[in-house]
Amino acid sequence: MTTITRGTVYLVGAGPGDPELLTRKAAALLAGADLVLHDDLVPAAILALAPHSMLVNVGKRCGAKKITQAQIHEMMTSSARHGMSVVRLKSGDPAIFGRLAEEIDALRAAGVPFEVVPGVTAALAAAASVQASLTDRRTTSRLLLISAHHAEEKQAAPRQDWRALISADTSVAVYMPGHDFAPLQQDLLAGGLSPQTPCVVVSRAGTPDEEQIRTVLGRLVATPPMPSPTILLIGRTLGRDAQPAEAALQAAIGALQPAGGLLRS
Amino acid sequence: MTTITRGTVYLVGAGPGDPELLTRKAAALLAGADLVLHDDLVPAAILALAPHSMLVNVGKRCGAKKITQAQIHEMMTSSARHGMSVVRLKSGDPAIFGRLAEEIDALRAAGVPFEVVPGVTAALAAAASVQASLTDRRTTSRLLLISAHHAEEKQAAPRQDWRALISADTSVAVYMPGHDFAPLQQDLLAGGLSPQTPCVVVSRAGTPDEEQIRTVLGRLVATPPMPSPTILLIGRTLGRDAQPAEAALQAAIGALQPAGGLLRS
Repeated sequence: MTTITRGTVYLVGAGPGDPELLTRKAAALLAGADLVLHDDLVPAAILALAPHSMLVNVGKRCGAKKITQAQIHEMMTSSARHGMSVVRLKSGDPAIFGRLAEEIDALRAAGVPFEVVPGVTAALAAAASVQASLTDRRTTSRLLLISAHHAEEKQAAPRQDWRALISADTSVAVYMPGHDFAPLQQDLLAGGLSPQTPCVVVSRAGTPDEEQIRTVLGRLVATPPMPSPTILLIGRTLGRDAQPAEAALQAAIGALQPAGGLLRS
Repeated sequence: MTTITRGTVYLVGAGPGDPELLTRKAAALLAGADLVLHDDLVPAAILALAPHSMLVNVGKRCGAKKITQAQIHEMMTSSARHGMSVVRLKSGDPAIFGRLAEEIDALRAAGVPFEVVPGVTAALAAAASVQASLTDRRTTSRLLLISAHHAEEKQAAPRQDWRALISADTSVAVYMPGHDFAPLQQDLLAGGLSPQTPCVVVSRAGTPDEEQIRTVLGRLVATPPMPSPTILLIGRTLGRDAQPAEAALQAAIGALQPAGGLLRS
């Protein structure tokens, strides 16, 4: 069972947004925390699991930057030192594009005890939603997670570096891809991927408002804008036609059989 | 709330092994499933969450291959067609090195309805255990997931391909790294990484038997064997000394302060 310790900061992944995709540990910590410092992206249905906690939105979206990263560090350390149990709730998994490194540095610097609780990161939730694997021992042996934000920053460095990462046997998950897919499409094509490579954009994965758009790399730039947060998955495993010809034939035969029919049962 | 439908197969991530790191959805499905087909790696403490289900170990470890992949497909489709609710329980996340693609193809081919439920994959659990982020906007903008098994297969293809993926601003998580780290160390050094790059091997992450060994890339080959399953994390964010000099100084000051002291509170 999960127990919660006063004076400790728990850096917790909230998962993609569906309260059912929270870990049991995250739910137990929310139920017992004195203070919950949460990102903007964490939905009300998850915050409702912390009915006895003080809730503070430390999100830096909503237009203006209301709270700085340094202020978040200060709130965490100060509250823990006052003996509170603190949950720092981050959407997805804290170790993936979540500024966890900076918050760990601040907690270490302050000598405040902390624990990291992993969560379901957006790429995994989106893949589950579109009913696809991200690896496939027949075709795809690697998965690369990038953020478009960082990819843009890297343009000061040689772009060749990023394109060298691309290969047809590597799935790519792009976090925070934004609305302008032109630079990504250009880089991935320049990296040698086929224009026919399947792509899926998933908006608000793992929530009731989830939307999906399936396309191919050569038409990625024509994808209409979708509500944030979005994630972009690219790779051969994302195609509905990814299965071998024999399996496709069996699928056609299977579709003719009633559920519970005699075939294979 | 999660509901379970008869005649449906749920391809569910069991997470790293700690029952508290299971999603709430996975726990609800286990509580209601007629049949649970589980991997060898799923521990008894998680299977105990399915007290009313028929449990079948379809793991292909334990020395001999007891059950083939085709037999797993047959058990899933046949049981669903007989009106059972079936949980196919995979360790970690099903979309990461879990043969999910093949099982989806089989279910589509058979016309059996299915749902994918994501889980906490081993890289995230291991990073949380060692209290490290896998990205850091100051140093590390990408994460690459590979399996050593696949890396070896690829040696028929040009090895240059794999080494081109390596860069100092990319964390690498190696699934199923085995016990012989020599080829990996050689590839990563040839890819241009510093011998001082921090590495952590985590054995049985997220279980009571978890063990960790911290080392650096130049000494990786000297890591003693650890019990399976293991995962290897490589990258600058894994170092305890990854924080900037200022933060290190503050850490030294913080260590001198009693908990609840006046500094910053």
